[in-house]
Amino acid sequence: MTHIDGARLLTDLRDLARFGQVSTGVTRLPFSSDDLSAREWLRARMAAAGLAASIDPYGNVYGAVPGAGPAVLIGSHTDTVPQGGWLDGALGVMYGLEIARARLEQGQRDVDVVSFMDEEGTYLSFLGSRTFCGGMTDQELERTKGPGGRALAEVIRERKSFGAPARLDRDRHVAYLEAHIEQGPRLEAAQQRIGVVSAIVGIHRYRVSVEGQANHAGTTPMSMRRDAGATLIGIAAEVPQRFAAEAGAETVWNIGSMSFSPGVTNVVPAAATMSVEFRDTDVKILDKLDGVLQDIAAAHSRARRLPVETSLVMRAEPVKMDERMAQAIATAAQGRGEAARIMASGAGHDAQILAQCLPAAMLFVPSIGGRSHTVTENTRDEDIVLGCQVLADAVERILTP
Amino acid sequence: MTHIDGARLLTDLRDLARFGQVSTGVTRLPFSSDDLSAREWLRARMAAAGLAASIDPYGNVYGAVPGAGPAVLIGSHTDTVPQGGWLDGALGVMYGLEIARARLEQGQRDVDVVSFMDEEGTYLSFLGSRTFCGGMTDQELERTKGPGGRALAEVIRERKSFGAPARLDRDRHVAYLEAHIEQGPRLEAAQQRIGVVSAIVGIHRYRVSVEGQANHAGTTPMSMRRDAGATLIGIAAEVPQRFAAEAGAETVWNIGSMSFSPGVTNVVPAAATMSVEFRDTDVKILDKLDGVLQDIAAAHSRARRLPVETSLVMRAEPVKMDERMAQAIATAAQGRGEAARIMASGAGHDAQILAQCLPAAMLFVPSIGGRSHTVTENTRDEDIVLGCQVLADAVERILTP
Repeated sequence: MTHIDGARLLTDLRDLARFGQVSTGVTRLPFSSDDLSAREWLRARMAAAGLAASIDPYGNVYGAVPGAGPAVLIGSHTDTVPQGGWLDGALGVMYGLEIARARLEQGQRDVDVVSFMDEEGTYLSFLGSRTFCGGMTDQELERTKGPGGRALAEVIRERKSFGAPARLDRDRHVAYLEAHIEQGPRLEAAQQRIGVVSAIVGIHRYRVSVEGQANHAGTTPMSMRRDAGATLIGIAAEVPQRFAAEAGAETVWNIGSMSFSPGVTNVVPAAATMSVEFRDTDVKILDKLDGVLQDIAAAHSRARRLPVETSLVMRAEPVKMDERMAQAIATAAQGRGEAARIMASGAGHDAQILAQCLPAAMLFVPSIGGRSHTVTENTRDEDIVLGCQVLADAVERILTP
Repeated sequence: MTHIDGARLLTDLRDLARFGQVSTGVTRLPFSSDDLSAREWLRARMAAAGLAASIDPYGNVYGAVPGAGPAVLIGSHTDTVPQGGWLDGALGVMYGLEIARARLEQGQRDVDVVSFMDEEGTYLSFLGSRTFCGGMTDQELERTKGPGGRALAEVIRERKSFGAPARLDRDRHVAYLEAHIEQGPRLEAAQQRIGVVSAIVGIHRYRVSVEGQANHAGTTPMSMRRDAGATLIGIAAEVPQRFAAEAGAETVWNIGSMSFSPGVTNVVPAAATMSVEFRDTDVKILDKLDGVLQDIAAAHSRARRLPVETSLVMRAEPVKMDERMAQAIATAAQGRGEAARIMASGAGHDAQILAQCLPAAMLFVPSIGGRSHTVTENTRDEDIVLGCQVLADAVERILTP
C-alpha cells in the first residue's frame, strides 16, 4: 500500500494557493503571470520529486516518471476563473504529485502527473487536455480570441521556445485519473466523503429569442401589442413543468440570463432573449428536452403570432467514465471505511477529453456548502487527505495485475 | 369663425423641424443648441405675429397677446426625445401660434401661446409647465442631474439674464388647450380624425426584485436551488391573467425590462429584477392592481421561500380634463363634420400639470401606424390642418359667452 503524506499534500496545496491569491481564493487566468509562475513552481516541485518535468508551449505542465511505463496519468488543471477557489483543479494536480512522489519513495515508477492549461475556457475550454490528446487544429487556435481580443495562436507562437507539446502516449499511459471537488452539495447533504463519477453530463445550450415591436406602453392598447417580452415570459414559465415531466432524477436545467430590448419601463419590448441549458448523462433525455423546448416555443409563436427562434449554441455529449477504473476507486474507498457515492458530474472536466483516448475515472471530495468558483470554496482538510489516500489506493489496484 | 391658414401652419411646422433634423425626425434635447435655436426661432415667429414674446430662464417660450385678457393659453413643448418625431409637442405649439395669429388678424386679442421646456423629462419631466404653474422648488432643481451629470439648477442659473420666469396669470388665463398627436393606434384603427381627451392616465411603476443564491447550474440539484430567475419568471407569468381579471377596458400594463444577475448561462441566478407599470384613468383600478401585484409576489415568495421585494418607484395620479372645455372641442369637431372620439391619454402631457390650476383640455390627431418618439412618426397633412381648425373653433366657443 502507498501511504501518502497528508501534511505534505496540504502544504503544497497552500503554497500553490499563494499564486494569484485573492483573500481566501485565487485568480489565475491562463497565461497570466500568476498562472505561469504557479506552473513554474509546480514544474520545480515535480522535478524535486524526481519527475522529468517541463512546461509545453500550450502551458501544460507534464511530469513523467523515469522509465518506459506503464504509468497511470493523474492530473487536472491549475488555471482558475476570476476570483475562484483555491482547490478546484489544483486539488487533482497536487493529488497526482503526492501520489507519484509517495510511490517513487517506495521505488514504484508508475505515475505521471499533469496540469492542463485553460480547462476553464478563458480562451478555449479544455485547451490543454485537447492539445495533449492531439485533438486541436491550428485553425481553431487562430480563430480563438482571448481576453483583450488577442488570438490564442499568437500567445502559443510566442511560447515556441518551450519545445515540443506534451502528448499522451498510448504505449505508456494505461489510465487517466482525476480528482476534483464536487462543486455541488450532494456529498455533503448525504454525509458521504468520496464520490466516484459514473459519467460527465452532456449539455445542450440554447438561445431563445422573440422578435416583436416596440410601442409606447401607455398609448398602445393591450390587444394591439406585439410584445416580445410577454411572449418570452410565457415560454420561460412553461419550461419547469414541461421539462420536469420528461426529466430524469438527475436532470438539471437553467435559465441563466434574460433580457429585453430596448429594456425601458414604458416601452413594449421589441425583442427578448434568454439562455436555456439542460444537462444529463442520458442523451435520450437531452434529445427529448430539445423537442419539448421547440414545442413550447412553437406554441407560443403561433398563439402570439410573433417569430420565436431557438438556436442551439452549444452541445456537449455525455461521456461515460471507465467502469473498471471507477470500480477501483469505489473499492479503494471501501478499503478506507467509506461507502463511495456513485454520481454524475454536472460540470465538465478534463477527464471528458481524456476519456476519448484512455480509460478514465474521477474521484470527488465534498464541497463545503456546495460552493465552487468563488473565494469561499473549501473542503475539510481530513476530506482532502482521505481523497488523496483513496486515489493512491486505487492506483495500486489498477497497476496490480 | 376663425379661419386658420393651413398652408402657413404646415410651413411653420416644417421650418421648425429643421432644428435638430435627423432624417425624417428631430433630436432637440432640452437646453441643447438645437433646442435653444428652435426656441429663438419660435420667439421671433411669435413676435412677427404680434405677440409679446420672450424666453424665460427655464427655456419656456411665452408669447402674450397685447391686452389684459381674458386669454386662452394654447401650447405644448418643442423639446424632443433623442431621434424623436417632427410633430409630437411641436404640433400643439404651432397650433397655438397659428390660432393666435389668425385671431389677431381678425382683431381678436385673446390667445396666448407657450412652448414649455423639457416635457420629455431629459432632466425633469414637465420642468417648464411646472415652473410656469409655480410648482417647482429650488431643492428639486438642485437635486436633478441632467445628461453628463450637470445639475439642472446650474443650467438655470447660467440663464438668469433671461429675466423673470413666465408665469400663469389666473386673472388673465381662462383655459389651457393642448393639441398633440395621439401617439397610439386607436384613432387610425377607428378611422376617426379628432380625439378629445377625457383624462390623462395615472401611472404606477414598480420594481420587483427577487433575491436568491448563485449556484453552479450543472452541479446543484434542482431541489436545492434558490433560483431568483425562475421565481421572477413565475411572478411575471401570472401578471397578464391576474391583471386582466381586474382591469378596465382601457387599462394597460407593461413589463418593459427584466434582467438576471450574474446573468450567465451556467449559473443559477442570484438576483432577478423587472419593471412593472400599469396605467388607467381610474385610481380604483390602479389601487386594485397594486394589491394584485403584491399578492402574486407574496405567493411566489412563500412558495419558493425567497425574499421578493416590490418597490413603487413612481406614482402619477390620473388627471381629469375639464368637461366644458372638452365638450367645446367635441362640438367644434362636429361642426366640421367629424365625430370626435372621447378617449383617455395613455401618455403624460403638460396639460396634466396645467389642469391643476386652470380648466384644461386636449385634442388628438391620428398618428400614422400609431408611431411616436421615432423619426417615422407622422400625421396626414389634412389631419394636421383639420385639428388646428377644430381647436380654433373650440377657442371661439370657449371665449364666446
